[in-house]
Amino acid sequence: MMIQNVPLSAEEIYMQRCIQLALLGQDKVAPNPMVGSVLVYYNRIIGEGYHQQYGKAHAEVNCMNSVKDADKPFINQSTLYVSLEPCAHFGKTPPCTDLIIRNKIPKIIIGCRDPFEAVNGKGIEKLLAAGIQVTIGILEDSCKELNKRFFTFHTKNRPYILLKWAETANHFIGNNTPERLFISSDTTNKLVHKWRSEEAAILVGTNTALLDNPSLSNRLWTGKQPIRLVIDKKLKLPKTSILFDKKVLTIVFNFLLQEEIEKNLLYYKLDKNKDVLPQIMEACFQLNIQSILVEGGRKTLQSFINTNLWDEARVITNRQLLADEGVSSPILFNTKHKTTTIMAGEYITYSS
Amino acid sequence: MMIQNVPLSAEEIYMQRCIQLALLGQDKVAPNPMVGSVLVYYNRIIGEGYHQQYGKAHAEVNCMNSVKDADKPFINQSTLYVSLEPCAHFGKTPPCTDLIIRNKIPKIIIGCRDPFEAVNGKGIEKLLAAGIQVTIGILEDSCKELNKRFFTFHTKNRPYILLKWAETANHFIGNNTPERLFISSDTTNKLVHKWRSEEAAILVGTNTALLDNPSLSNRLWTGKQPIRLVIDKKLKLPKTSILFDKKVLTIVFNFLLQEEIEKNLLYYKLDKNKDVLPQIMEACFQLNIQSILVEGGRKTLQSFINTNLWDEARVITNRQLLADEGVSSPILFNTKHKTTTIMAGEYITYSS
Repeated sequence: MMIQNVPLSAEEIYMQRCIQLALLGQDKVAPNPMVGSVLVYYNRIIGEGYHQQYGKAHAEVNCMNSVKDADKPFINQSTLYVSLEPCAHFGKTPPCTDLIIRNKIPKIIIGCRDPFEAVNGKGIEKLLAAGIQVTIGILEDSCKELNKRFFTFHTKNRPYILLKWAETANHFIGNNTPERLFISSDTTNKLVHKWRSEEAAILVGTNTALLDNPSLSNRLWTGKQPIRLVIDKKLKLPKTSILFDKKVLTIVFNFLLQEEIEKNLLYYKLDKNKDVLPQIMEACFQLNIQSILVEGGRKTLQSFINTNLWDEARVITNRQLLADEGVSSPILFNTKHKTTTIMAGEYITYSS
Repeated sequence: MMIQNVPLSAEEIYMQRCIQLALLGQDKVAPNPMVGSVLVYYNRIIGEGYHQQYGKAHAEVNCMNSVKDADKPFINQSTLYVSLEPCAHFGKTPPCTDLIIRNKIPKIIIGCRDPFEAVNGKGIEKLLAAGIQVTIGILEDSCKELNKRFFTFHTKNRPYILLKWAETANHFIGNNTPERLFISSDTTNKLVHKWRSEEAAILVGTNTALLDNPSLSNRLWTGKQPIRLVIDKKLKLPKTSILFDKKVLTIVFNFLLQEEIEKNLLYYKLDKNKDVLPQIMEACFQLNIQSILVEGGRKTLQSFINTNLWDEARVITNRQLLADEGVSSPILFNTKHKTTTIMAGEYITYSS
């Protein structure tokens, strides 16, 4: 209950270090997973590395390369920790399993399996076949959480879906008047832009795009700009919409047009006789979009909930604000997914 | 973010042990606080104790008494850990500070100060005056959380107030028909009875008492029965109400009568020209009721929220159930207090 901290085992401490290292690759390695690795010789870390950049060396390679000459004789008596199963295939770089075997590392401790089809157990098998002692599942939940987008993408063949909305104390996300409800605070606005920087894409429906004319860009945080996705079945959006500014790719899911107008503007035609969301999921999978932040409006958010196409909800709640009537919040129906509540106006409060 | 575990320092590990020990006194020491203590001689625990029973020895005394003869020569070179400031006054037992000084313990590490008027810094001063090295605030938040009821009672002069209700996916706590909404599950019903066992008293308003005729007893969990509080201003409740079964004390807050009818039935008269809730708080403080679980209905719950007389809300949510109309949930307005959501039908899910 009130005791939150249980001391970690030595193995967990080294795996935690792998996760810390992995996180240094955030925003730079997608669509690859973040991976960190340490090499330990009797309670002493003699090598550290992480996957730094998409297409560049994997964590294990950087870890091995970091070992100082004086420590190299100890490599074949050391334990290698890596947050994700080492690859066994030739991708943009050679297989990490070969590197491990070649260096005669006797023991490897792995955070979690790699669900990516070309790996998925093959790395572990190859290590075991070479007579290496393999342990799997140290801080497994944390290692999976670290790459939850990558895991969802490769196990469910669709992006990781985050739903986001802001609501009043009595569960309204908007009112019926032309005036806008100011539910969010400066702090939560910054937080939302941080979230935008963390996901591959942002999605809104036609009504939100028409009413708010949003840019869906990240202006209040550092980091990258997300791809913009808009559902505009009948192409109602005016050409003057900010979403068509071509500063970042915008994909318009619609029933009428399949065309890449020019760089950064893609019309993606859906079959109007089939459900819309599964088709969008399929398109995103083909386009290698690993995560989507769905920013509304109510109809769009509810449609994701009703088809159970989501993984996480983040609800900004303003407990200082009431709306007498208006657009009620999406209903989190039939779901066990993680839900986080952020209080507008406070530095941080959350729940899951 | 995903790294939940940070290794504890040695001091934190020993304080955590104090908290574990303290919890063994749960349900047995109220209205005293739960307290645990360990005595450490060079990385080895040579004594352990906790406050076991109201009126009996304090944690420090039990800790000192547990030291084996072989270890007694080390006491004056050991560090004493205690989750709460040692008392410096004669209560039902002699002051613990004297015991510590008499045993020549050179160093003491305290989780948090004791807000109780007779202690509140005086224990620390007495130890410092005796030349003992004192450290305060190790795992302080956890030590305060451990005795949150006691802390609230002595700092705010009122009970610790927990609000509880069960709501549908679309935020209704009841419907408009005579049929009852079955929002809770077997598991959450058990959980609510566990909560009843943990608090000094349960409170409901007139409408809930009239409509549901509840016993407010703990039947699905082990442990004690809470005192029952009912707000019945005009004494509308029939004498046949289960609340008048006299199996456990029921206090009826009303505008008409001040009388102890017989054992386990007390009519407590409130001044109808003053706000009701502050008077109830004052009464509970006088009656030494350290905590109240408010179980509704909507009007009663909302009145606690609107007067900011609460500390924690526990909301049971059934995400499989919708109500088309009915009694809407209380609105958590103007509040930063801890709110926990429990999913009906799942083993455990929560948020705060």
